This record gives sequence, C-alpha cells and structure tokens, in this order.
Amino acid sequence: MHSLRSPYLLYLGAAQHLTDAKTACGLRDWCPDKVLGEWALPESRVTLGLPRLSPAEAAAKGAGSLIIGIASVGGTVPEAWLPDLLAAIGAGLDLVSGMHTRLSSFPVLVEAAQRHGVQLIDVRHGTQSYPAGTGRKRSGQRIATVGTDCALGKKYTALALTKALQAQGAKATFRATGQTGIMIAGEGIAIDAVVADFVAGAAELLSPDNDPDHFDVIEGQGALFHPAYAGVTLGLLHGSQPDWIVLCHDVSRVHIEHRPDFPIPPLDEAAAQYLQAARITNRAVQLAGVSVNSSSLDDYDWHQYRENTSRTLGVPVCDPLRGGVEAIVSRVLGVSSL
Amino acid sequence: MHSLRSPYLLYLGAAQHLTDAKTACGLRDWCPDKVLGEWALPESRVTLGLPRLSPAEAAAKGAGSLIIGIASVGGTVPEAWLPDLLAAIGAGLDLVSGMHTRLSSFPVLVEAAQRHGVQLIDVRHGTQSYPAGTGRKRSGQRIATVGTDCALGKKYTALALTKALQAQGAKATFRATGQTGIMIAGEGIAIDAVVADFVAGAAELLSPDNDPDHFDVIEGQGALFHPAYAGVTLGLLHGSQPDWIVLCHDVSRVHIEHRPDFPIPPLDEAAAQYLQAARITNRAVQLAGVSVNSSSLDDYDWHQYRENTSRTLGVPVCDPLRGGVEAIVSRVLGVSSL
Repeated sequence: MHSLRSPYLLYLGAAQHLTDAKTACGLRDWCPDKVLGEWALPESRVTLGLPRLSPAEAAAKGAGSLIIGIASVGGTVPEAWLPDLLAAIGAGLDLVSGMHTRLSSFPVLVEAAQRHGVQLIDVRHGTQSYPAGTGRKRSGQRIATVGTDCALGKKYTALALTKALQAQGAKATFRATGQTGIMIAGEGIAIDAVVADFVAGAAELLSPDNDPDHFDVIEGQGALFHPAYAGVTLGLLHGSQPDWIVLCHDVSRVHIEHRPDFPIPPLDEAAAQYLQAARITNRAVQLAGVSVNSSSLDDYDWHQYRENTSRTLGVPVCDPLRGGVEAIVSRVLGVSSL
Repeated sequence: MHSLRSPYLLYLGAAQHLTDAKTACGLRDWCPDKVLGEWALPESRVTLGLPRLSPAEAAAKGAGSLIIGIASVGGTVPEAWLPDLLAAIGAGLDLVSGMHTRLSSFPVLVEAAQRHGVQLIDVRHGTQSYPAGTGRKRSGQRIATVGTDCALGKKYTALALTKALQAQGAKATFRATGQTGIMIAGEGIAIDAVVADFVAGAAELLSPDNDPDHFDVIEGQGALFHPAYAGVTLGLLHGSQPDWIVLCHDVSRVHIEHRPDFPIPPLDEAAAQYLQAARITNRAVQLAGVSVNSSSLDDYDWHQYRENTSRTLGVPVCDPLRGGVEAIVSRVLGVSSL
C-alpha cells in the first residue's frame, strides 16, 4: 500500500500545453486541500493557477512531497528536470512519480534521497507482497465503479460519487487503485502492478472492515471485455466485494479503444456480466446506476439517451460532468437505509 | 519463460512417504524420457523405482538438472539437503525448485552456482517481464483446460489430452502454466507469478503462432468461481484464445476447496460462463468435453453420472484415470477436420 506525505508541490517540468499536465489538473481539482503550489522550468508555458513555489519555498510552508504532474516523453526523467528534483530532495521532500521508468533507476536520485532521508515513490509500481484473497465478508458498504472499457471515467466517477455521498452527509472514502487516484487519495494500491495470484487479496486489504454505514467507493480498473486486462478487472471486483456497482461508459465508444476487433457489448449485457461476476463474493450485489461520458451528444440526444437507457436498465443514468451523480447516490442511500 | 536442461535427476531428500514425492512421481509418469534417475538421503524410505544415481553419476550420464521432487516443510531448504545440492552444483547440474522460498535466497547456493556456472531455477517464480495482451488471433488450434475449482485435474487432463492427440497422429504440445507442469514440459510460464497487467500477454507468448493442424493444449489455473484466483483464470483464458475448452471437475467437490461459503455452480452453468468469457478473444470457442475425477463413485454411479452429464451438456464426459480422454479427442479431431 502506497502512502504519500502531503501537502504536495506539483511539478510541471517544461510542459507547453495544459493537456500534458492531466495528472496535476486532477490533483488540483480533486484534492485542492492537499496541494500547496506548482513549480516548473522557466520555459514551461503552463500554469494551474496555483501559487508558484520553489521546492525550498514549498518545504518552508510544510510540503511533504513533490509530485511529477506531467507525462514525460518515453516515461523517463529528462536531464533538464534533475536540478529541480535534486533541489526538492535537498529540501526534504519525497519525490512521487507515476512514470513507467522508476525514479529508483536514476542513481543520482537514489544517492541524494538516501543522503537526505527522503523517499522515491513510484505509484505505478508495487512496493510489497500481498496475501491471497480469503473471500471473507467484510463489514461496511462498498461501491465499485466498473467499465465497458479502459479510460472512460471510472476514477472520475468514483471521486464524484465519494464527494456526492459526503455532501449528503454519508461517511465515504475513495479507494484508489491506479497512479493518479493514489496521488489524489494520498494512499492506495496500484492493482495492476500486483502479482496475479494476489490481486483479490490486495483488493481485500484496500477496503478493510468499516462502520456499517460507511461507504468505500472503489476505483475500477480495465474492463471484463478487454482482451488484455479483464483478469485485473475480475480480481479487483472479487476482492472489493461490492454491494453496488456503477457501470461507466462512453457513448462514443463502440469497440475497445485501439482494438477495433473487440466490440463493447450492449449496456444491459455488460451490466449482467458484471453482476454475475460480482456475485461470486457478494450475492446481494446490485446495479446502482450508469455513469456516462456523453460529451459527444448534444443536449437533446443526451436527454433521449438517458431516458431510454434508464428505462431499459431500471436505474439512474448520469453524466458526472452534466448534472452530477446525485441520482445514483440517492438510490444507494435510499435503498441502503431501508 | 522458464526453460530447463534435461535429463533430470529427481531429488527426494529424506522423504518417508510416496505422497511427499508427488512432483517426482508426476515427472516419472509424464516425462519418463527426461528422467535419468533418483537420489535421496540415506534415511529416505521412498523410491520411484528409478536408477539410484549420485549427482556426479547422473552428470556423467549427461544429466542437465537436479529437480527437487518433494515438498519441504515450510517451503524452505533443510540444512540436511545442502551437501547433496552442493554436490549437484559441483557436478555442473542446474538446480530446479518449485518451493515458495527461492533457491537464490540461500547465499551458499548462489555462491556455489556462480562459481560453477550453473543456474538456480525457481519455477514457481517469474523470471522476466511480459508485454500486455494484444488479442491478435494466432494460427494453429488451442485447447484449454478449465476447472470448477483449483487442484482437481486441469494439468493431468491437459497432459492426457496431449498424449491422446499424439497417439491419434495429431501434432500436439502441452503448454505448462504451473510449477510441476513446467518441470514436465521442460519449459513454460508460472502464470500466477506474472504481474497482473501482463497475464494475458504472457499467455499469448506461451502458445505462439503454429501450423494450422497443430494443437496447443494449455494447462489451466484456478477457477472463475474462486474468490482469490478467478482473475488469473480469466487472463490466462483470454490470452490462450482457445478454440476448445475442456471443463475439469471433481464429482465429490460441492464447494470451493477450503472455502465452504463458495458453492461450485452446476456444470452447465460453469461451462456457459467459461464459454462466455472465452468468446472475448475467440468467438468460435466450443466446449470439447468434461474431464471428471470420479474416484468417489463406484462403477454403477460413474456410469449413470457420465450418461446423464453427457446428455445434459451434449459433449463427451471422461475420467482420464477411468477409460481415458479419447472420446474428447475424437470430438476435437472429428470437428476440426470437417
């Protein structure tokens, strides 16, 4: 389980476009209270609108970590970043990265981190071994986001559900299973980096026993219909033991991204397959609703789509960016309090 | 991918009962041409009926590896084995182990192996990284064994199918995914030790493109209904892209082993769920037959069970130890040659 020291200084390197800084934007939007400021190379043309603080200034204000908030070409650390990263280490900040290449593969960073007693944390990679799953039913309530494909809003939906539950006065915790989610939550498990045999076991540890009226909202990964990642999806689902699943979908997606030979099934079939799979570890699991990325539809088409889908599936259909997820939360709270 | 140097010397340590030497027995039975002999401590009371050869004698006869053929208490190497293991290293043999504890965690073995230029091979553990699955359809035909639970004959069935296919003159290769299977085949991938994101990709590498009339027979792992291991099962199934699945079952098993809260579904439901999952990467997948461990039934009951199950599912039902798997092979060859 990763555990990060907040607050954060977000590092933007030499980013030229805001789209390069997706991770940093996510942190600014979803955990503003954990974010102290931003820092970048002089040639960067991007700002998040946060105070601009050098690593030393951020450390003086109590920062715990410098988070690399941009994607780098080839997933490696450019030479040009090293002075800033070494300055952060020298100021006593942990370095946090979601890059493919581990921070620990750069001897100059390892040496400096050891000398200054700080951590190099690669949230994309595992840090420990996990036990096998037990299947033991845990106390508390769990909502898992699942998807018709990768990269269509499972993390975003889980964060939105957590916020909406809390806004209704419910106890709710977002449980992160991917790199950006872990940075936002400050903790979590990069579930796809776990050794296959222990995925369900790791997922069990991620949402331990809790109060009967507490909701763990678990960030899904992959998709049951994806030829490469369905195993991760299933292990995570089984270990999560959800009482509720929220099916996430992008209306513009007709096949698995980058894999035109793999069609996305109709939503009712997709929901049925997820429920069938989830019943292995929680026979009472229910579909809470559908969370849709509807950005490709105009208002009229979105209204039609939402009405039709909701009628077919018998559950609320929401777009977190177009009216929010309150209808799903109301269903969960209404049924859960019966 | 593990690759072992044969022929083997099987090591029995201080085994007192043949049941302690399950791995060694499997090797003797399934790859007799790869097995030169056996060796044990003087206090061992077990023999496999093979020539008794010291490591030096085995090396002189051309042995490539000493395989630890017994389970050790706690999964570690007892002090008493060290002289024999060091003698094997000194004679130029690789050491092969399926223990939880890695051979490489014993400094004395590592030092000796380096000095003599031999390998310490832990087949339970991974040796490399794998790419993500592509879902690309490969040439050749594939049969995957799948199960209603763990440990009920998926490896045995895959080996029996391979042998029966070859006996009918078909080209067939057993593809190992677990430790004993890897020792028998001399190569393979310990699929449950692969990082979760790459399970399907590793399975794709395990049975590469082949002749159109060649059969890869892939050893299944885990079960879709198992709360801990279903993710491994699904990833392996997707990467294997089977044209045929053979469902393995133990008639005496009503729930997942050691997990009484997890019932095993009826065979028709189990088969339907496996076919649904396998269709993601091969829409033409079919059920080839059911392979049953029927040791708990007398002849009359087995006959009844076989007839009823075969009628319900419309496929041959076999017990590899009670009449063989030829009926399943005939169905596969008959349909495949149409």
